Amino acid sequence: MTAFTPTSSPDLPPVPTVEPEPAPLHAGVSDRAATQQAREQQVGQRPGTLTIREGSLVPRLFLISYSDSFFQESEYRNYDDLLAYFQANPQLKHWIDVRGYNDLGLLQRLMQDFRIHALHMEDVLGDYQRAKVDVFDDNRLFLVSRMTDFTSLLEIDDDQLSLVTGPNFVISFQDDYEDCLDSVRNRLRSGFSLIRHKSPVYLAYALTDVVLDHYYPTMAAIGDYIEVLEDRIFNGRPNRHLLSRILQIKKDIVRFRRLVYPEREKIAEILRMPDNVVSEEIKVYFKDCYDHAIQAMDLAESYRESISSLMDLFLSDQSNRMNEVMKVLTIISSIFIPLSFVVGLYGMNFQRENPDGTVNHLNMPELYEPWGYPALLGLLALIVCGQLVYFYRKGWLTNR
Amino acid sequence: MTAFTPTSSPDLPPVPTVEPEPAPLHAGVSDRAATQQAREQQVGQRPGTLTIREGSLVPRLFLISYSDSFFQESEYRNYDDLLAYFQANPQLKHWIDVRGYNDLGLLQRLMQDFRIHALHMEDVLGDYQRAKVDVFDDNRLFLVSRMTDFTSLLEIDDDQLSLVTGPNFVISFQDDYEDCLDSVRNRLRSGFSLIRHKSPVYLAYALTDVVLDHYYPTMAAIGDYIEVLEDRIFNGRPNRHLLSRILQIKKDIVRFRRLVYPEREKIAEILRMPDNVVSEEIKVYFKDCYDHAIQAMDLAESYRESISSLMDLFLSDQSNRMNEVMKVLTIISSIFIPLSFVVGLYGMNFQRENPDGTVNHLNMPELYEPWGYPALLGLLALIVCGQLVYFYRKGWLTNR
Amino acid sequence: MTAFTPTSSPDLPPVPTVEPEPAPLHAGVSDRAATQQAREQQVGQRPGTLTIREGSLVPRLFLISYSDSFFQESEYRNYDDLLAYFQANPQLKHWIDVRGYNDLGLLQRLMQDFRIHALHMEDVLGDYQRAKVDVFDDNRLFLVSRMTDFTSLLEIDDDQLSLVTGPNFVISFQDDYEDCLDSVRNRLRSGFSLIRHKSPVYLAYALTDVVLDHYYPTMAAIGDYIEVLEDRIFNGRPNRHLLSRILQIKKDIVRFRRLVYPEREKIAEILRMPDNVVSEEIKVYFKDCYDHAIQAMDLAESYRESISSLMDLFLSDQSNRMNEVMKVLTIISSIFIPLSFVVGLYGMNFQRENPDGTVNHLNMPELYEPWGYPALLGLLALIVCGQLVYFYRKGWLTNR
Amino acid sequence: MTAFTPTSSPDLPPVPTVEPEPAPLHAGVSDRAATQQAREQQVGQRPGTLTIREGSLVPRLFLISYSDSFFQESEYRNYDDLLAYFQANPQLKHWIDVRGYNDLGLLQRLMQDFRIHALHMEDVLGDYQRAKVDVFDDNRLFLVSRMTDFTSLLEIDDDQLSLVTGPNFVISFQDDYEDCLDSVRNRLRSGFSLIRHKSPVYLAYALTDVVLDHYYPTMAAIGDYIEVLEDRIFNGRPNRHLLSRILQIKKDIVRFRRLVYPEREKIAEILRMPDNVVSEEIKVYFKDCYDHAIQAMDLAESYRESISSLMDLFLSDQSNRMNEVMKVLTIISSIFIPLSFVVGLYGMNFQRENPDGTVNHLNMPELYEPWGYPALLGLLALIVCGQLVYFYRKGWLTNR
Amino acid sequence: MTAFTPTSSPDLPPVPTVEPEPAPLHAGVSDRAATQQAREQQVGQRPGTLTIREGSLVPRLFLISYSDSFFQESEYRNYDDLLAYFQANPQLKHWIDVRGYNDLGLLQRLMQDFRIHALHMEDVLGDYQRAKVDVFDDNRLFLVSRMTDFTSLLEIDDDQLSLVTGPNFVISFQDDYEDCLDSVRNRLRSGFSLIRHKSPVYLAYALTDVVLDHYYPTMAAIGDYIEVLEDRIFNGRPNRHLLSRILQIKKDIVRFRRLVYPEREKIAEILRMPDNVVSEEIKVYFKDCYDHAIQAMDLAESYRESISSLMDLFLSDQSNRMNEVMKVLTIISSIFIPLSFVVGLYGMNFQRENPDGTVNHLNMPELYEPWGYPALLGLLALIVCGQLVYFYRKGWLTNR
Repeated sequence: MTAFTPTSSPDLPPVPTVEPEPAPLHAGVSDRAATQQAREQQVGQRPGTLTIREGSLVPRLFLISYSDSFFQESEYRNYDDLLAYFQANPQLKHWIDVRGYNDLGLLQRLMQDFRIHALHMEDVLGDYQRAKVDVFDDNRLFLVSRMTDFTSLLEIDDDQLSLVTGPNFVISFQDDYEDCLDSVRNRLRSGFSLIRHKSPVYLAYALTDVVLDHYYPTMAAIGDYIEVLEDRIFNGRPNRHLLSRILQIKKDIVRFRRLVYPEREKIAEILRMPDNVVSEEIKVYFKDCYDHAIQAMDLAESYRESISSLMDLFLSDQSNRMNEVMKVLTIISSIFIPLSFVVGLYGMNFQRENPDGTVNHLNMPELYEPWGYPALLGLLALIVCGQLVYFYRKGWLTNR
Repeated sequence: MTAFTPTSSPDLPPVPTVEPEPAPLHAGVSDRAATQQAREQQVGQRPGTLTIREGSLVPRLFLISYSDSFFQESEYRNYDDLLAYFQANPQLKHWIDVRGYNDLGLLQRLMQDFRIHALHMEDVLGDYQRAKVDVFDDNRLFLVSRMTDFTSLLEIDDDQLSLVTGPNFVISFQDDYEDCLDSVRNRLRSGFSLIRHKSPVYLAYALTDVVLDHYYPTMAAIGDYIEVLEDRIFNGRPNRHLLSRILQIKKDIVRFRRLVYPEREKIAEILRMPDNVVSEEIKVYFKDCYDHAIQAMDLAESYRESISSLMDLFLSDQSNRMNEVMKVLTIISSIFIPLSFVVGLYGMNFQRENPDGTVNHLNMPELYEPWGYPALLGLLALIVCGQLVYFYRKGWLTNR
Repeated sequence: MTAFTPTSSPDLPPVPTVEPEPAPLHAGVSDRAATQQAREQQVGQRPGTLTIREGSLVPRLFLISYSDSFFQESEYRNYDDLLAYFQANPQLKHWIDVRGYNDLGLLQRLMQDFRIHALHMEDVLGDYQRAKVDVFDDNRLFLVSRMTDFTSLLEIDDDQLSLVTGPNFVISFQDDYEDCLDSVRNRLRSGFSLIRHKSPVYLAYALTDVVLDHYYPTMAAIGDYIEVLEDRIFNGRPNRHLLSRILQIKKDIVRFRRLVYPEREKIAEILRMPDNVVSEEIKVYFKDCYDHAIQAMDLAESYRESISSLMDLFLSDQSNRMNEVMKVLTIISSIFIPLSFVVGLYGMNFQRENPDGTVNHLNMPELYEPWGYPALLGLLALIVCGQLVYFYRKGWLTNR
Repeated sequence: MTAFTPTSSPDLPPVPTVEPEPAPLHAGVSDRAATQQAREQQVGQRPGTLTIREGSLVPRLFLISYSDSFFQESEYRNYDDLLAYFQANPQLKHWIDVRGYNDLGLLQRLMQDFRIHALHMEDVLGDYQRAKVDVFDDNRLFLVSRMTDFTSLLEIDDDQLSLVTGPNFVISFQDDYEDCLDSVRNRLRSGFSLIRHKSPVYLAYALTDVVLDHYYPTMAAIGDYIEVLEDRIFNGRPNRHLLSRILQIKKDIVRFRRLVYPEREKIAEILRMPDNVVSEEIKVYFKDCYDHAIQAMDLAESYRESISSLMDLFLSDQSNRMNEVMKVLTIISSIFIPLSFVVGLYGMNFQRENPDGTVNHLNMPELYEPWGYPALLGLLALIVCGQLVYFYRKGWLTNR
Repeated sequence: MTAFTPTSSPDLPPVPTVEPEPAPLHAGVSDRAATQQAREQQVGQRPGTLTIREGSLVPRLFLISYSDSFFQESEYRNYDDLLAYFQANPQLKHWIDVRGYNDLGLLQRLMQDFRIHALHMEDVLGDYQRAKVDVFDDNRLFLVSRMTDFTSLLEIDDDQLSLVTGPNFVISFQDDYEDCLDSVRNRLRSGFSLIRHKSPVYLAYALTDVVLDHYYPTMAAIGDYIEVLEDRIFNGRPNRHLLSRILQIKKDIVRFRRLVYPEREKIAEILRMPDNVVSEEIKVYFKDCYDHAIQAMDLAESYRESISSLMDLFLSDQSNRMNEVMKVLTIISSIFIPLSFVVGLYGMNFQRENPDGTVNHLNMPELYEPWGYPALLGLLALIVCGQLVYFYRKGWLTNR
């Protein structure tokens, strides 16, 4: 295929630099991110309608142009300048890096100039699109990856990275100025990278791979937190707060699996593509990617098991604590209730004197014995000792 | 294929406007909608038998006729007029919109005039048909979609939309005057829509897509309710009412999955159809639909997990509350039962005087000491303090 | 293939009319029907051995002969007469309806005359055979369906219907005089039925379909009972009897799924058969059957979920009742145990008089105050009020 | 293929008749048979190494030679005699029945003479091999089946039966003198059996089938025991012993599934084999076998559900009993604790006489009323009645 | 393919012998090994980057050279010597055994000299790679196996063994001086082994097989420990320590399945490879391997069930113990609380004398009866007996 020539290039207004922050999602057991996703789905619009979501960033345009021996990197405030440079250098490979969606006109021009399908552009701008790959124009790729982050709110935050490849370029779209792609940029700058020597699909691979690599720190953060929770269970007290943390992490792991699974599917689909779309040489690298995706799934499964074990521990602890409370009650009651009976017995007022004045030797003679009180104290001590021995044998006095 | 010509067109009686309301289903844990579905299944009838269900609406007929440059929309009280217009305008594309089934003769004429298979017509009228697609007459489609709604009774209500395509028309059947298809009608009216320029299969796609789009608000409503339930659990008290709400939402999510899963299957089947039935160009749009269906499944899975976490929280809370009750009982009993024993001890009537009148110094001498009572009060205070320290250390006095 | 001519026709003895009743299975949690099935499996016999199970009915023979314009229906007490009529009318289509297996000779003659495979005949007579389809003699079908019934013992009762097709006949076997096939017979009698105009395979379809249709009333009965159980849980008291009912229904649903799943498999296999066995025209009808089977599976899944929700409700209720018991105990104990201590305190016998006759003002002076008793009663009332306020705030006094 | 001629035939030592008994496995919840299997796995040996397991029986050799019209059955104490007879009668079909493995030399000669693959011979001798089938030498089969037994220890015992087919023989290997194959021997002896007329593969089928048939009595025994457990739960008391029985049976069912599943796989693989290995005619019989295997799986699933229901009943019972204990405690405590307070109240020693000798009418005047004691008794009776009514209304006094 | 000639061979520095020990992982419920794996994943590096992990061993190089009739085994301190010998003897087969990774230069030279793909070398050095197989250079294999060990910390420890095959050599990589491959070395030394006569792929098979064989002792150790836990539950007391052990073993089994499953996949992939990569003759051996892998999976499933049964037993025990505590409390309270009431009754101070000095016969006349006290004692004894009978009948006095 010959070099690709965009069809138009009008002037663009200057780009402001205000960066609206998305409100942090409340972290809880219910999947509020999912609900938000459901709520923001546009209903009944004609397919391919482009809508800028509220809170989108003003776009910044970066262009990295490179070949085996050439490298140039710059931010353009004006789309036409970028386009002009791109058109003037068909012999170079270009990475057009669009960050921020808040300019519908710009996006429509990009769509036209680089012949991106309207449905793909809708996926770029939409709230949520699972990882996927589409082939269009016979051998161009549209790729969606999801970049994850484990936030301080114990949520998995995920942002979308969309890639469009062409004969001598890759366009990347994201609605964030900060990203996890700097390692790829550095490899390009260094000059030693294979990216410089290979086709743009290899750059798309490198970007996909780096996103996938970032799943591991996310998982490691979750794993660390699971260990924290385990320590809490072993040392502290089970309470609802702890349980809700456990369930929150469980939710995150489920969410993570929902992110990784389509990623794996995507790469498997790439591996099945014909050679004219993705060459065998590059598939070797995607195969490596595939292994990573499977291992990330494995990790998520392991964590799922860990969380389920934590739940079991938590519930067993809850039950144990009830047991402990009951044992205290039982020991105290069992010891003192009989004693109370005995002392109550000798608090009765049966009269020693019969109405006729004679002594009634049947009515509580113990009360009139000189040794009555000491003997009773001895009896009480005996009862207490007997019970203590019984409870000790049951193992209730030792710490479980 | 050439334009399609219906074969007959008798007069139809005028259409009354009474709209019987279906009795609201009782909302509960058991799936009464499923039981109703099982109960209404017609047993042993010959296939293709058409039966009007009780409570069906009197049909209203709408015709939208359009081409690239033409648009006309009208309600016909007389089927023959509609048919006449349809037959007179084979160059236009037509959307025949039938709302209400309560006229067997009309439906049979539609069946004949537009050559609809008897089994398909039975599916249209039947109580419940999963989403599905059939090809008939080589390249015509019969499509069933289910339109969902989340009612104030916390039930998912679903109505059936059946579509039949032909060379220059789409017939839609539903037993409701209100529907969720207005956005498609508006797009047609606006003139900018692709529907005006493409084949009737595209209109069928647009209708399928808008139904699928409406799954998202349903899910969002469920998601919102899950958050309400979560707040209730965290703030209020766990009771059976709350549990039955949780289980009801769980039932809804299960029901939703049963609705979406066949929808996905249906679209996957369309994507596998040969080009002469659904062209590649339109499959691109159905592919987009397919992504939406998968994401709706994903959402349902997320909510399933959330509900399961809510269940865990609920049960743990129930257990916690029992624990709290037990702790109160244990603390009160453990403090006062020993105290009662002590005071009972000094309520005994052991006699200080021996029968011979001498003083028995063994029998409860404490009672005769001037400091007896204050010392005892001190002892009691000591016991109470000891116990409070013990319980404090156990953490039973603090709020869990 | 040309018309089918049986090879022999000896006389048969007259048929008695005694109908032995199978002993009702005990309804319980364990699957006694499955155990009976395991127990009755014949071990180590050569394949194709025919054995009449104990309690089988004396066979009754019915013949329905029909064509587009002809219909005749009669019961034959003599197999030879039936065979003679059958052989004399090769231009007609015949439904030979065998009810009752208790005549090995008859069955062997049927096997020979209509060339049924010995293994199929063993399946007919065996205790239990999953729904299945086999092709033999290139284009003849052997079909097994299971007819379900929901008995008053809350059991799913299922009887086997075996069908053998031939060029101009269908033989049906069942070990019951009553069945659910009357609607098919009525359709045949009416003359309007498609069965009259189509091949015997269509009759086999109609019989299969009517059996499948009867799954719905069975499911509806189960659904109704689930609602009864739900009401019991909400209104009555949870007890073991109720739990065992829930588990029994769960067992039924599992059993139902085991019945429907092979039915679906069977029809899917028919849909994959080549045209010379089952023609495309008839497959359209089996496709409809297939939809019904899938929807029956869906229903079973819904009920499974409902039963699982009922279990959750039941267990939560059990726990709630314990909670309620504990709360009563705790409230009563917490109020009266401290009161008992206080009154015990003033039941002590500390002496106001010192041994030397002087008044000891330290020993329980309250007892000698004129306002002592009223003050104490006030104190007790205060304690009670304090506790009631505490419990009210905890929400223990209100109905949960 | 021509008749098969073994290559050598040396003399064999006489066979002793001592039969060592394998020590009975301890029956419990953990799967000790699995652990034993893991422990006995030979690690790091070269593949095809033959090792005689400890406790193996001294081999006994049986030869059944047959044709359509001929039958001869004998035990050989000398392998060479057997071989000589076998080689001298290539026109007959032979079943060489080897019982006991404790003679490595013999087994190696068998391996050589009948060209058995070393890996297959290793499978014969190994401790545990799942059911499987291998084709070797283009059209010979190596089959492994597992013969089950339900022991008095509530364990499923399984022994291995290995079969090797050849052009005119089947060799069966087992390490037991008793087996479940006698029905096949009897069918051979009777002369009516199809086995006499068909190829050795049919004999292999018959042996496989009879082993599979024996799964049913095993399942029936388990089913019977489940009913026993159910009765215990309904009549007796839940205790740990009962629970461990339930779990033991659950283990058996899981084990049974692990046995049957590969059996099904094995037969499915046979059904997929080309005609030159297993002819269509014999596949019809294996198809029947396949149905049996699936039905055995179905049975196991049913039992799994039953066991899970028993667990639910058991746990609910355990909870119910706790509830009952608590109710007794609560009723007794709630009735007597307030009464004790009241009587304690009137045991107080407030003085009627003021220090100045006047009567203090405020201090417990009730004690001085003539009707004091009867009134109090009435009050107590009233309290008791009130409580009984309360508890009766709660349903605590009736039997749940 | 002709013999393989490495391309370069510079001198290597002498090898030190310090062996750093990896810190033992803390054994617990959470999967710390998984977290460590996630943490060590290198993010954003260019694919094929080789990094030596901290704590890697200094490499030791072993060379075993063999043919049908020749065997030589030696450790080389200098890579060039090894390479020289290898290059000088193309007619021999070689096993180059690299143990320890702590020399990047050496590994890079191996990579170059034996044409190993950079991505494979990265897999060798990486922290964790699932079992896998890759074909490269048309017919060379890259194999990863995981060697397991059950440590005294109740953890499954797994080390990686990577194999690279070539026309006349196998290179094995591991980061451990000790391994489980000695049995293969011994078989090679013995001279009888098939390895000596077959291609290097057979050696790769033998190494894979011996690793797989070692899964069985690991499983047996786990099985033994499960039996220990079962005994603990039956004899000792349930406590959290025991529960955490159960969960730990569960984690190990899950981990084991994660190890074995890819192993099975790997071998299945080998079995599907074309003949020019792995010959049919060797596939027979891999088929045997495959059976072992499936049986190891079966074992893991069995243990999973056992662990789940242990959990059920544990939880039921926990509940039982609570029940026992409650019974003791209930028995003691139920007996003594009514007794206390009775004796409290007769401790009341109702006055026998009316204010006017007459005797009040209504106020507690029992106190003045000569038989009052003995009668009361009799009453108390009666109450106690009645309660004991009641509790005995309930079965609360016997040991459950």
